[in-house]
Amino acid sequence: MGFRERRARVLGEAGVDAFVVGYPANMRYLAGVWIETYERPCLLLAGPSQAILLAPELEAERVRRAVVDEVILYRDGENPYALAAETLKALVDRGGRIGFDGWIPLRHYMGIIGEIRGAEVLLIDDALYRVREVKDEEEVEALRRSANLLQEIFKEIPGMLEQGISEADLSFELVRKAYRRGAEDAHALVQFAENSAVPHHSYSQRTLGQGELVLVDMVLRLDGYYSDITRIYSLGDPPRKAHRIAGIVEKANSAARMKARPGITAGMIDEAARRVIVEAGYGKYFIHRTGHGLGLEVHERPYIAPGSSEVLEEGMVFTVEPGVYLPGRFGVRIEDDVVVTSRGAEVLTDRLPREIIVV
Amino acid sequence: MGFRERRARVLGEAGVDAFVVGYPANMRYLAGVWIETYERPCLLLAGPSQAILLAPELEAERVRRAVVDEVILYRDGENPYALAAETLKALVDRGGRIGFDGWIPLRHYMGIIGEIRGAEVLLIDDALYRVREVKDEEEVEALRRSANLLQEIFKEIPGMLEQGISEADLSFELVRKAYRRGAEDAHALVQFAENSAVPHHSYSQRTLGQGELVLVDMVLRLDGYYSDITRIYSLGDPPRKAHRIAGIVEKANSAARMKARPGITAGMIDEAARRVIVEAGYGKYFIHRTGHGLGLEVHERPYIAPGSSEVLEEGMVFTVEPGVYLPGRFGVRIEDDVVVTSRGAEVLTDRLPREIIVV
Repeated sequence: MGFRERRARVLGEAGVDAFVVGYPANMRYLAGVWIETYERPCLLLAGPSQAILLAPELEAERVRRAVVDEVILYRDGENPYALAAETLKALVDRGGRIGFDGWIPLRHYMGIIGEIRGAEVLLIDDALYRVREVKDEEEVEALRRSANLLQEIFKEIPGMLEQGISEADLSFELVRKAYRRGAEDAHALVQFAENSAVPHHSYSQRTLGQGELVLVDMVLRLDGYYSDITRIYSLGDPPRKAHRIAGIVEKANSAARMKARPGITAGMIDEAARRVIVEAGYGKYFIHRTGHGLGLEVHERPYIAPGSSEVLEEGMVFTVEPGVYLPGRFGVRIEDDVVVTSRGAEVLTDRLPREIIVV
Repeated sequence: MGFRERRARVLGEAGVDAFVVGYPANMRYLAGVWIETYERPCLLLAGPSQAILLAPELEAERVRRAVVDEVILYRDGENPYALAAETLKALVDRGGRIGFDGWIPLRHYMGIIGEIRGAEVLLIDDALYRVREVKDEEEVEALRRSANLLQEIFKEIPGMLEQGISEADLSFELVRKAYRRGAEDAHALVQFAENSAVPHHSYSQRTLGQGELVLVDMVLRLDGYYSDITRIYSLGDPPRKAHRIAGIVEKANSAARMKARPGITAGMIDEAARRVIVEAGYGKYFIHRTGHGLGLEVHERPYIAPGSSEVLEEGMVFTVEPGVYLPGRFGVRIEDDVVVTSRGAEVLTDRLPREIIVV
């Protein structure tokens, strides 16, 4: 699908006369370039006949590859909000509807809105994510390549584990491997022993000891698309109950994957994983949703959360990542990436075993 | 200054009855914790008598150290916006004024505002940055420690340069050194030869050749506070004109530093640097402002930009970083961090030479 067609679909889906988008993933989806700016706004302004990219002059080199009709560069000292408002006024008649990307900072919105009168404004996040969440074959192929690269890196983890290595050093080595092989972005949460009980702990100088669990949750972006995997390792025999808990989590992961097919709701997927953990008596230790959509962002629609009524369709891609966290002791999470196909789930991350890998 | 006092100053400076803050640096400044969340909002809601932190349950461990009166945790599936609105209604009478942090995503604002009626809302970014930009002695001391650590790392760069090293590998090694020595965040732009003419180029697999320039622009965060330095190196004799251009840029950097004292405007600092480069005939190749404030963010007030009428005060901290970029050839930028004192500029980054270091 071309960028012009994607923009037309967003305009139609959102029911607006023009939109303002600034979040890097949305910009990449709608104009083909990934640009991250700080306080200087970089915005895509699009109507049915025209798409204009407004960017700081500093980004001139990067902006050159954008697939748009016009690029407007501004210098420090110029008011980008006035430029944006002027451009929007040319795209939308007085009284028209302008849609905004909800991930742009509130200040950019307020700056632009202060210069426009008479337009109706609304958020178009739902439309953006609805269009983005159903991937075309080209996107699924990019997601496969991304997942394959990440799996290659995971296969090297057992050889990297040794007594005394720090979470930070292991994380760095993993991220470096990803960049060396062409990733554009990469992050690795590395959590030893009790740190693995804190789901969002990133990494620290803590070193690995004999008999301790290692949780690695890594994402990378290749050609714009993310993959996201979590696996568990152990240096020597794991702590008491770890194998048993990993078995429960694996069963929950598998139940969720088996459930995936068009027509099922995201809530039913979550329920399939959650039921396994609740029935095993660990329900109160599974403190997050079962998964999230994956694409140009690490977290996007569909969210695999309790009670979600979102109906799965072919081409949707998401993670399945149940976990059990025992505070002060350890946590186990097993995370895979799946695509919904007419026949069920295509698992993009099937090349890695799911039990605790004892090194 | 305690966190409660900081919150009271922001309320007073902004003239609001309560505020909603969510940007990590603002949260750190006003509640003592650095929390980065993705789509799950984490917000500080404060009025004159109470400060409440609303956070996803996933962040329970981190949130524990927040200096607030109450923490409200929500689970996936609960509506955090309704919880935020309810809390705000308890803080502000109907018809009161609520201030918003402009760096929170537009969607969080829309979510909360949809649940509140009758309140007047406004952005409080100016007030937040005005309060934050004048550092107290404790903060300046943290900035000194941060700058000292970064200078120690820069001193090791000459020993790391060798033919064939990639921008990415040099960047990684620098970042790793920073984390090993206690930095909480670190980024290094490493640009060889023609890449240094693209100010925001981050790094690539490009390798270093004999006679090429190396531009390193690195930031790190230590105990919450950032330092930010740029220096230029050369592997063997630098390209033609590089020494001459570095001399001009150094003179511009020095002119700006010499100008800094209370009562001078930021625009006058920019002008001091810019005039040197314009008079040397390279004005069109200096395509950004002269500097930016530095503190809990890499970019904050005061901005040292053309025409800025912001008046400098004791305790303000900013970078001085003029540059000349010759497209397709090379760029030179020299960046220091300074604190405004009653006697002029205290340069936090005076331990590093400013000429091209030939290795």
